[in-house]
Amino acid sequence: MAKFLRVNMSDGTVTQESPCEQYKHLGGRALTSRIVADEVAPTCHPLGPSNKVVLAPGLVTGTHAPSSGRISVGAKSPLTGGIKESNAGTPFSQQMGRMQIKALIIEGQAEEGFWLLVLDESGLRLQQADDLAGMGMSDVVDTLTERFGEHAGVMGIGPAGEMKMSMAGICFNDNENRASRYSGRGGLGAVLGAKGVKALVIDDTDAPGVEIKDQEMFRQGTRKLSDALREHEVTRPGGTLNSYGTAALINVLSEAGGLPVCNFSGGTYEEADDISGETIARMIEERGGEGMTGHSCHPGCIIQCSNVWPKEDGSEHVSVIEYESDWALGANLGISDLDAIAEMIRLCNDIGVDTIETGVTLGVAMEAGVAEFGDADRAIELIKEIGEGTPLGRILGQGAEVTGRVFGVTRVPTVKGQGMPAYEPRAVKGIGITYATTPMGADHTAGYTIGPEILAVGGEEDPLSPEGKAEISRDLQVATAFLDSTGYCLFTAFAILDIDSGFEGMVESVAGVLGTDWTADDATSLGEDVLDWEREFNRQAGFTRADDRLPEFMKLEKLPPHNQVYDVTDEELDRVHGE
Amino acid sequence: MAKFLRVNMSDGTVTQESPCEQYKHLGGRALTSRIVADEVAPTCHPLGPSNKVVLAPGLVTGTHAPSSGRISVGAKSPLTGGIKESNAGTPFSQQMGRMQIKALIIEGQAEEGFWLLVLDESGLRLQQADDLAGMGMSDVVDTLTERFGEHAGVMGIGPAGEMKMSMAGICFNDNENRASRYSGRGGLGAVLGAKGVKALVIDDTDAPGVEIKDQEMFRQGTRKLSDALREHEVTRPGGTLNSYGTAALINVLSEAGGLPVCNFSGGTYEEADDISGETIARMIEERGGEGMTGHSCHPGCIIQCSNVWPKEDGSEHVSVIEYESDWALGANLGISDLDAIAEMIRLCNDIGVDTIETGVTLGVAMEAGVAEFGDADRAIELIKEIGEGTPLGRILGQGAEVTGRVFGVTRVPTVKGQGMPAYEPRAVKGIGITYATTPMGADHTAGYTIGPEILAVGGEEDPLSPEGKAEISRDLQVATAFLDSTGYCLFTAFAILDIDSGFEGMVESVAGVLGTDWTADDATSLGEDVLDWEREFNRQAGFTRADDRLPEFMKLEKLPPHNQVYDVTDEELDRVHGE
Repeated sequence: MAKFLRVNMSDGTVTQESPCEQYKHLGGRALTSRIVADEVAPTCHPLGPSNKVVLAPGLVTGTHAPSSGRISVGAKSPLTGGIKESNAGTPFSQQMGRMQIKALIIEGQAEEGFWLLVLDESGLRLQQADDLAGMGMSDVVDTLTERFGEHAGVMGIGPAGEMKMSMAGICFNDNENRASRYSGRGGLGAVLGAKGVKALVIDDTDAPGVEIKDQEMFRQGTRKLSDALREHEVTRPGGTLNSYGTAALINVLSEAGGLPVCNFSGGTYEEADDISGETIARMIEERGGEGMTGHSCHPGCIIQCSNVWPKEDGSEHVSVIEYESDWALGANLGISDLDAIAEMIRLCNDIGVDTIETGVTLGVAMEAGVAEFGDADRAIELIKEIGEGTPLGRILGQGAEVTGRVFGVTRVPTVKGQGMPAYEPRAVKGIGITYATTPMGADHTAGYTIGPEILAVGGEEDPLSPEGKAEISRDLQVATAFLDSTGYCLFTAFAILDIDSGFEGMVESVAGVLGTDWTADDATSLGEDVLDWEREFNRQAGFTRADDRLPEFMKLEKLPPHNQVYDVTDEELDRVHGE
Repeated sequence: MAKFLRVNMSDGTVTQESPCEQYKHLGGRALTSRIVADEVAPTCHPLGPSNKVVLAPGLVTGTHAPSSGRISVGAKSPLTGGIKESNAGTPFSQQMGRMQIKALIIEGQAEEGFWLLVLDESGLRLQQADDLAGMGMSDVVDTLTERFGEHAGVMGIGPAGEMKMSMAGICFNDNENRASRYSGRGGLGAVLGAKGVKALVIDDTDAPGVEIKDQEMFRQGTRKLSDALREHEVTRPGGTLNSYGTAALINVLSEAGGLPVCNFSGGTYEEADDISGETIARMIEERGGEGMTGHSCHPGCIIQCSNVWPKEDGSEHVSVIEYESDWALGANLGISDLDAIAEMIRLCNDIGVDTIETGVTLGVAMEAGVAEFGDADRAIELIKEIGEGTPLGRILGQGAEVTGRVFGVTRVPTVKGQGMPAYEPRAVKGIGITYATTPMGADHTAGYTIGPEILAVGGEEDPLSPEGKAEISRDLQVATAFLDSTGYCLFTAFAILDIDSGFEGMVESVAGVLGTDWTADDATSLGEDVLDWEREFNRQAGFTRADDRLPEFMKLEKLPPHNQVYDVTDEELDRVHGE
């Protein structure tokens, strides 16, 4: 029987609940957002006792459905002040799914110190974790893997979360027990830190596995989806993502003039190829040793877009150099040295901060004169200061918006307080609509218009034109809200947008698990519901249309090489979700 | 002919305009708020070229009306993100009034460097001011007084404004050319700094004086008002304010359990008497020398509540130790040494920061462990760091909300990002309603319910009861919006609330200047209009009811000695301004 687990950190009580009817067909983002909307006062302090951290595996997570090992984490975000869902790919999610834990709700606030939660088939226990306090995530995972065995999954926060920094993420182990998979965005690590939770260990020994109500439907669906994934050029084994990783986008975006350079002051990076996915793959091959492309973040992934970056001598340096990190800590800082970027990613993973927010923040700090663009040594030092919690590190640890505020900088690329990812809205108009209007704050994954605007996936649109982009962003936001609820990786979208049977199969696989007769319309309907819940939470938290806007500088400053300002009108932005 | 002056810092142009009809009967806050609402995009970046700084003397400022030397400064606030009016008492306001400059509008943004604006009867000129850049306000006033003569009035910003700190105020000279009178609240100094204006010098030689349309009415009004001021115990010569200054409130509030102590963790200060107005007056008399009570901030004040604090040897230390500064840098930090408090005020005046925001911010920083409560030496060092712009100083310089955010503190006494003044809402319920619902952010002056709740002025109410306080706060907010538009000091309110002929006289004096037949109803109507304009600006800037709330901790933590939480309901708060 699928269950909710609830741990109250104020008094240490743990309760098990049968989810009531309204939660029965929800998972992943739909479930975290619904529980947060139902249980968290929208005006509460995100770091106070009234906030809650909700973890939920996707609806099919833990089954053999391909590329479905995502876990959603939800809470009120200290970065945006609104509702947040951030998901990660990790075997941890699958263990939770197999244990039939639909949601784990962490509430209240420990009076002092940090705690370790231990979760297995006998239940959930709290253990004092003073020995783990202050520890980087790499040591946390090593320590807990040693203590609980290789099979144990680990979730935790680094020093950044303990210091309640708004760029702190929640870390999960990858397939080989690296501290490398992050629910990075929105400062959820700070919320966990404020509750006094340092880490959670999960052991699914003797777990019953996910209950699949209609095995035939499920098998039929997963087969169709697998076929689509194996067919599409972007997702197939040996295809783009598998061969070059997500950083295959570096050259593409730079050529399109949409790769933000040096704190969003340009759209083309002259040294793009030095940090491109092609170069990453070539160097991994050249260096040999422990480096690899085609690495997967959880078992059962067909796409396998991750990688392990080797040092010059072939020994492992870090996993993973993906597009967003590569851009944020590379092009956005004018840095083109992959080894420096790798080191910055390693530090971020260990300190426990979101690589995107870190890169955007350092860009703003460089704009303020704290460091020179291109100075990799200084950038590495600054990230270390975040981990050490020096006054400067504390500033940076709060993200780009606070850093801009502290240094009086006006070119601050954020929406709802969250730093923008690796697509420049002035050159790719639709993605700006997603940044502006998703309840999540600037977030590319929430409605990835890059597909039709740049990659000719799911249609083909002129990136520089505002025309029709409100609808495209909206439709993708709805589809994504559904996808994020299933546990499937967002990258399955490449295949299902272009191959109808793939999407059919995805819906059938979900219907198979739930024992429903869902069709595409039900998927859309769920996606719309999720957005409604999230937007209503934000409305009650004080968000208005004025928050659904890009920063003023993008409307005043022309971006080279296209020399365009952001010209999607406010009316167009407001049309996305209507009233 | 009354005129507007407009200087565009982007291109250096200066224009003179005849105010159109809608501005004719506005002055002070009514005029700054109306112009800001009409000309500034509510969603603009407060430190960008789209914001404007508007200066306006009150309607009767520059006449012989008693205690009427206030100047209003308006802009979009970098501290609150909403509209802001902050007024100061200074001869500068009277010079502007006599020059018939209804409003000075500073817009655009200098490309680089800092500028000095020179304003006299021949017009307004821009001069490069690289020599003044980085200078503290004390030296700025000394330098400009020397350069332009004793008669010149000075307005300017210290290093804090140059660094665009959200606690930076705009400084004006006092009667004896001290850099001591501040439009302190809301970070208006940062807005001026962002425009590239370091200072403005005003010389009213050959000024025509304020045009008084109906001399008889004006004389009659000012006579009634003067009589009331000379009669009321609080405002009369030799009365409470004149003898003990505003710090006469220290003991009163502490005894009422409403004096916030150590970052709003208590309501009674055991060492209150060490920093009380009575002690200040006694020590000034004992030390002799240059110290004085009954000092006035501008010519023509009957109340004369200011003081000059002497060092132990009798030489001047600082002007002025007033209640808010005394509390913010004293009781709120657990510091009871008046000489230390005086030194902190001197530093604040020189660096150019609001003493209230500084004290509230240091309280939050102490809560975070940056310093111990009661450690005056460290508090002084921290203020110096603000002036130096060290990373820690930069954090503090952004005010209490950002400091709380950076250090992950949840007990942060702010509303709309602005630090709370010296009255604890859990012990004085009505003032919390004003903090929550005024468009200004936490601001006691916006609707001073302390009159009826604590001082038995304008009625007598139980401070601990929420009953009927929404109406009281609203009525006072309306009356204050009118008062702030006249140029009269808020402290005239003590007399006009209790003595009907005093209020009659105030309205008549304004009607006399304008040549209108205004009665009390017109005053109320103007006050209501001003609040409507301000609230509409804030609404468009993205404010909602969720912003009209006190911080969560005040609803969760009981405050000694009354052990009450803040129990005014959200519905009651929303009733203040209705829909």
